[in-house]
Amino acid sequence: MKVGRLNHIGIATPDIAATRDSYAALYGLENATEIKDFPKLGVRVCFVSTGNTELELLEPLGPESPVNKFLEKNPKGGQHHVCFEVPDIIAARDAMQAKGATILGTGEPYIGAHGVPVVFVHPKDTHGVLIELMQEPK
Amino acid sequence: MKVGRLNHIGIATPDIAATRDSYAALYGLENATEIKDFPKLGVRVCFVSTGNTELELLEPLGPESPVNKFLEKNPKGGQHHVCFEVPDIIAARDAMQAKGATILGTGEPYIGAHGVPVVFVHPKDTHGVLIELMQEPK
Repeated sequence: MKVGRLNHIGIATPDIAATRDSYAALYGLENATEIKDFPKLGVRVCFVSTGNTELELLEPLGPESPVNKFLEKNPKGGQHHVCFEVPDIIAARDAMQAKGATILGTGEPYIGAHGVPVVFVHPKDTHGVLIELMQEPK
Repeated sequence: MKVGRLNHIGIATPDIAATRDSYAALYGLENATEIKDFPKLGVRVCFVSTGNTELELLEPLGPESPVNKFLEKNPKGGQHHVCFEVPDIIAARDAMQAKGATILGTGEPYIGAHGVPVVFVHPKDTHGVLIELMQEPK
Protein backbone atom coordinates (compact mmCIF):
# COMPACT_ATOMS: atom_id res chain seq x y z
CA MET A 1 0.00 0.00 0.00
CA LYS A 2 1.48 3.34 -1.09
CA VAL A 3 0.43 6.75 0.18
CA GLY A 4 0.53 10.08 -1.61
CA ARG A 5 1.40 13.67 -0.80
CA LEU A 6 1.41 15.19 2.66
CA ASN A 7 -1.98 16.89 2.74
CA HIS A 8 -1.35 18.75 6.01
CA ILE A 9 0.26 18.86 9.42
CA GLY A 10 -2.21 19.02 12.30
CA ILE A 11 -1.22 21.52 14.99
CA ALA A 12 -3.17 21.57 18.25
CA THR A 13 -3.49 24.82 20.16
CA PRO A 14 -5.39 26.07 23.20
CA ASP A 15 -5.99 29.40 21.39
CA ILE A 16 -6.66 29.03 17.67
CA ALA A 17 -7.22 32.76 17.10
CA ALA A 18 -3.79 33.70 18.45
CA THR A 19 -2.10 30.81 16.61
CA ARG A 20 -3.85 31.80 13.37
CA ASP A 21 -2.57 35.35 13.84
CA SER A 22 1.00 34.07 14.26
CA TYR A 23 0.98 31.94 11.12
CA ALA A 24 -0.91 34.62 9.16
CA ALA A 25 1.99 36.95 10.02
CA LEU A 26 4.42 34.42 8.51
CA TYR A 27 2.36 33.33 5.49
CA GLY A 28 0.12 36.32 4.82
CA LEU A 29 -3.49 36.71 5.91
CA GLU A 30 -4.63 35.67 2.42
CA ASN A 31 -3.25 32.18 3.10
CA ALA A 32 -5.21 31.62 6.33
CA THR A 33 -8.86 30.52 6.23
CA GLU A 34 -11.51 31.69 8.65
CA ILE A 35 -11.89 29.64 11.82
CA LYS A 36 -14.75 27.16 11.51
CA ASP A 37 -16.42 25.02 14.19
CA PHE A 38 -16.93 21.29 13.59
CA PRO A 39 -19.07 20.23 16.56
CA LYS A 40 -19.35 16.62 15.40
CA LEU A 41 -15.55 16.35 15.16
CA GLY A 42 -15.01 18.19 18.45
CA VAL A 43 -12.68 20.81 16.98
CA ARG A 44 -12.45 24.38 15.72
CA VAL A 45 -10.30 24.44 12.58
CA CYS A 46 -8.33 26.90 10.46
CA PHE A 47 -6.06 26.08 7.50
CA VAL A 48 -2.90 27.96 6.60
CA SER A 49 -1.38 27.31 3.18
CA THR A 50 2.42 27.04 3.00
CA GLY A 51 2.32 26.82 -0.80
CA ASN A 52 3.18 23.13 -1.03
CA THR A 53 1.02 21.85 1.84
CA GLU A 54 -1.15 23.13 4.70
CA LEU A 55 -1.07 23.60 8.43
CA GLU A 56 -4.33 22.51 10.07
CA LEU A 57 -4.79 24.44 13.31
CA LEU A 58 -7.02 22.64 15.82
CA GLU A 59 -8.59 23.91 19.04
CA PRO A 60 -10.69 21.53 21.12
CA LEU A 61 -14.45 22.06 21.01
CA GLY A 62 -16.23 20.53 23.98
CA PRO A 63 -15.29 18.06 26.71
CA GLU A 64 -15.26 15.08 24.32
CA SER A 65 -12.79 16.65 21.90
CA PRO A 66 -10.12 14.24 20.61
CA VAL A 67 -7.57 17.02 21.09
CA ASN A 68 -8.13 17.48 24.84
CA LYS A 69 -5.76 14.73 25.93
CA PHE A 70 -2.97 16.07 23.72
CA LEU A 71 -3.29 19.57 25.24
CA GLU A 72 -3.25 18.14 28.76
CA LYS A 73 0.17 16.73 27.93
CA ASN A 74 1.24 19.76 25.86
CA PRO A 75 -0.54 22.78 27.36
CA LYS A 76 1.00 25.30 24.95
CA GLY A 77 0.05 23.21 21.93
CA GLY A 78 2.23 21.44 19.40
CA GLN A 79 2.33 19.16 16.40
CA HIS A 80 -0.59 16.74 16.69
CA HIS A 81 -0.65 14.60 13.51
CA VAL A 82 0.42 14.28 9.88
CA CYS A 83 -2.03 13.57 7.07
CA PHE A 84 -1.16 11.58 3.97
CA GLU A 85 -3.47 11.32 0.96
CA VAL A 86 -4.47 7.90 -0.33
CA PRO A 87 -6.30 7.01 -3.54
CA ASP A 88 -8.72 4.60 -1.81
CA ILE A 89 -9.45 5.06 1.89
CA ILE A 90 -10.95 1.60 2.37
CA ALA A 91 -8.04 -0.17 0.68
CA ALA A 92 -5.58 1.94 2.67
CA ARG A 93 -7.35 1.23 5.96
CA ASP A 94 -7.42 -2.50 5.21
CA ALA A 95 -3.73 -2.52 4.26
CA MET A 96 -2.74 -0.76 7.48
CA GLN A 97 -4.81 -3.18 9.54
CA ALA A 98 -3.27 -6.13 7.71
CA LYS A 99 0.14 -4.82 8.84
CA GLY A 100 -1.10 -4.82 12.44
CA ALA A 101 -1.93 -1.14 12.78
CA THR A 102 -4.79 -0.02 15.01
CA ILE A 103 -7.38 2.30 13.47
CA LEU A 104 -8.84 4.74 16.00
CA GLY A 105 -12.55 4.85 16.88
CA THR A 106 -14.86 2.40 15.18
CA GLY A 107 -12.31 1.66 12.48
CA GLU A 108 -14.70 3.00 9.84
CA PRO A 109 -13.76 6.06 7.77
CA TYR A 110 -15.71 9.23 8.55
CA ILE A 111 -15.94 12.67 6.93
CA GLY A 112 -13.21 14.99 8.24
CA ALA A 113 -12.79 18.76 8.13
CA HIS A 114 -11.84 18.59 4.43
CA GLY A 115 -15.16 16.94 3.48
CA VAL A 116 -13.59 13.60 2.46
CA PRO A 117 -13.35 10.28 4.37
CA VAL A 118 -10.46 9.82 6.79
CA VAL A 119 -9.09 7.35 9.33
CA PHE A 120 -6.48 7.80 12.03
CA VAL A 121 -3.76 5.22 12.78
CA HIS A 122 -2.77 4.83 16.43
CA PRO A 123 0.73 6.27 17.06
CA LYS A 124 1.82 3.14 18.94
CA ASP A 125 2.05 1.45 15.54
CA THR A 126 3.80 4.31 13.76
CA HIS A 127 6.82 5.20 15.93
CA GLY A 128 4.88 7.73 18.01
CA VAL A 129 3.41 9.71 15.09
CA LEU A 130 -0.38 9.99 14.81
CA ILE A 131 -1.08 9.44 11.10
CA GLU A 132 -4.27 10.49 9.35
CA LEU A 133 -5.05 8.86 6.02
CA MET A 134 -7.34 10.93 3.80
CA GLN A 135 -9.16 10.02 0.63
CA GLU A 136 -7.54 12.23 -2.04
CA PRO A 137 -9.73 15.32 -2.54
CA LYS A 138 -11.10 15.50 -6.14
CA MET B 1 8.84 38.89 7.39
CA LYS B 2 7.30 36.21 5.20
CA VAL B 3 8.35 32.57 5.06
CA GLY B 4 8.19 30.14 2.16
CA ARG B 5 7.32 26.51 1.59
CA LEU B 6 7.40 23.80 4.22
CA ASN B 7 10.78 22.21 3.56
CA HIS B 8 10.23 19.26 5.91
CA ILE B 9 8.72 17.88 9.10
CA GLY B 10 11.30 16.67 11.61
CA ILE B 11 10.32 13.34 13.19
CA ALA B 12 12.37 12.09 16.14
CA THR B 13 12.73 8.37 16.70
CA PRO B 14 14.71 6.08 18.99
CA ASP B 15 15.24 3.67 16.05
CA ILE B 16 15.81 5.41 12.72
CA ALA B 17 16.33 2.16 10.80
CA ALA B 18 12.93 0.78 11.81
CA THR B 19 11.22 4.12 11.22
CA ARG B 20 12.87 4.42 7.81
CA ASP B 21 11.57 0.95 6.95
CA SER B 22 8.03 1.96 7.92
CA TYR B 23 7.98 5.11 5.79
CA ALA B 24 9.79 3.36 2.92
CA ALA B 25 6.91 0.87 2.94
CA LEU B 26 4.45 3.76 2.55
CA TYR B 27 6.43 5.91 0.09
CA GLY B 28 8.62 3.40 -1.71
CA LEU B 29 12.26 2.67 -0.96
CA GLU B 30 13.30 4.94 -3.83
CA ASN B 31 11.96 7.91 -1.87
CA ALA B 32 14.02 7.23 1.28
CA THR B 33 17.66 8.30 1.49
CA GLU B 34 20.39 6.33 3.22
CA ILE B 35 20.87 7.05 6.93
CA LYS B 36 23.72 9.48 7.48
CA ASP B 37 25.48 10.48 10.71
CA PHE B 38 26.00 14.17 11.54
CA PRO B 39 28.21 14.05 14.63
CA LYS B 40 28.48 17.84 14.89
CA LEU B 41 24.67 18.15 14.87
CA GLY B 42 24.23 15.22 17.25
CA VAL B 43 21.85 13.32 14.98
CA ARG B 44 21.55 10.47 12.50
CA VAL B 45 19.32 11.58 9.61
CA CYS B 46 17.28 10.07 6.78
CA PHE B 47 14.93 11.93 4.42
CA VAL B 48 11.73 10.51 2.98
CA SER B 49 10.12 12.40 0.09
CA THR B 50 6.33 12.68 0.15
CA GLY B 51 6.29 14.30 -3.30
CA ASN B 52 5.45 17.80 -2.12
CA THR B 53 7.71 17.93 0.96
CA GLU B 54 9.96 15.69 3.07
CA LEU B 55 9.99 13.85 6.35
CA GLU B 56 13.31 14.26 8.17
CA LEU B 57 13.85 11.28 10.45
CA LEU B 58 16.15 12.02 13.39
CA GLU B 59 17.81 9.64 15.84
CA PRO B 60 19.98 11.08 18.62
CA LEU B 61 23.73 10.66 18.19
CA GLY B 62 25.59 10.99 21.47
CA PRO B 63 24.74 12.24 24.96
CA GLU B 64 24.63 15.91 23.85
CA SER B 65 22.11 15.34 21.09
CA PRO B 66 19.42 18.05 20.87
CA VAL B 67 16.86 15.27 20.35
CA ASN B 68 17.53 13.46 23.64
CA LYS B 69 15.20 15.59 25.74
CA PHE B 70 12.34 15.14 23.27
CA LEU B 71 12.70 11.36 23.38
CA GLU B 72 12.78 11.36 27.17
CA LYS B 73 9.33 12.97 27.02
CA ASN B 74 8.20 10.92 23.99
CA PRO B 75 10.02 7.57 24.23
CA LYS B 76 8.38 6.11 21.10
CA GLY B 77 9.26 9.18 19.04
CA GLY B 78 7.03 11.77 17.41
CA GLN B 79 6.79 15.00 15.46
CA HIS B 80 9.75 17.13 16.57
CA HIS B 81 9.80 20.30 14.44
CA VAL B 82 8.60 21.94 11.24
CA CYS B 83 10.98 23.66 8.82
CA PHE B 84 10.03 26.68 6.71
CA GLU B 85 12.24 28.06 3.94
CA VAL B 86 13.22 31.73 4.02
CA PRO B 87 14.96 33.78 1.32
CA ASP B 88 17.45 35.37 3.76
CA ILE B 89 18.26 33.55 6.99
CA ILE B 90 19.81 36.59 8.70
CA ALA B 91 16.86 38.85 7.87
CA ALA B 92 14.44 36.12 9.01
CA ARG B 93 16.34 35.56 12.26
CA ASP B 94 16.39 39.29 12.98
CA ALA B 95 12.67 39.65 12.21
CA MET B 96 11.78 36.80 14.57
CA GLN B 97 13.92 38.28 17.33
CA ALA B 98 12.33 41.70 16.77
CA LYS B 99 8.96 40.05 17.42
CA GLY B 100 10.30 38.71 20.73
CA ALA B 101 11.11 35.16 19.64
CA THR B 102 14.04 33.30 21.20
CA ILE B 103 16.55 31.74 18.81
CA LEU B 104 18.08 28.54 20.21
CA GLY B 105 21.81 28.12 20.86
CA THR B 106 24.10 31.07 20.14
CA GLY B 107 21.46 32.76 18.00
CA GLU B 108 23.76 32.51 14.97
CA PRO B 109 22.75 30.43 11.92
CA TYR B 110 24.70 27.20 11.41
CA ILE B 111 24.86 24.64 8.63
CA GLY B 112 22.16 21.99 9.05
CA ALA B 113 21.72 18.53 7.54
CA HIS B 114 20.67 20.06 4.19
CA GLY B 115 23.95 21.98 3.86
CA VAL B 116 22.38 25.42 4.20
CA PRO B 117 22.21 27.81 7.21
CA VAL B 118 19.40 27.30 9.72
CA VAL B 119 18.12 28.63 13.03
CA PHE B 120 15.58 27.18 15.45
CA VAL B 121 12.91 29.27 17.18
CA HIS B 122 12.04 28.27 20.74
CA PRO B 123 8.55 26.67 20.91
CA LYS B 124 7.54 28.85 23.85
CA ASP B 125 7.23 31.70 21.33
CA THR B 126 5.40 29.71 18.66
CA HIS B 127 2.45 28.06 20.42
CA GLY B 128 4.42 24.95 21.35
CA VAL B 129 5.78 24.20 17.87
CA LEU B 130 9.56 24.08 17.39
CA ILE B 131 10.15 25.98 14.12
CA GLU B 132 13.30 25.68 12.01
CA LEU B 133 13.99 28.45 9.51
CA MET B 134 16.19 27.37 6.62
CA GLN B 135 17.90 29.42 3.96
CA GLU B 136 16.22 28.35 0.71
CA PRO B 137 18.36 25.68 -0.96
CA LYS B 138 19.58 26.87 -4.40
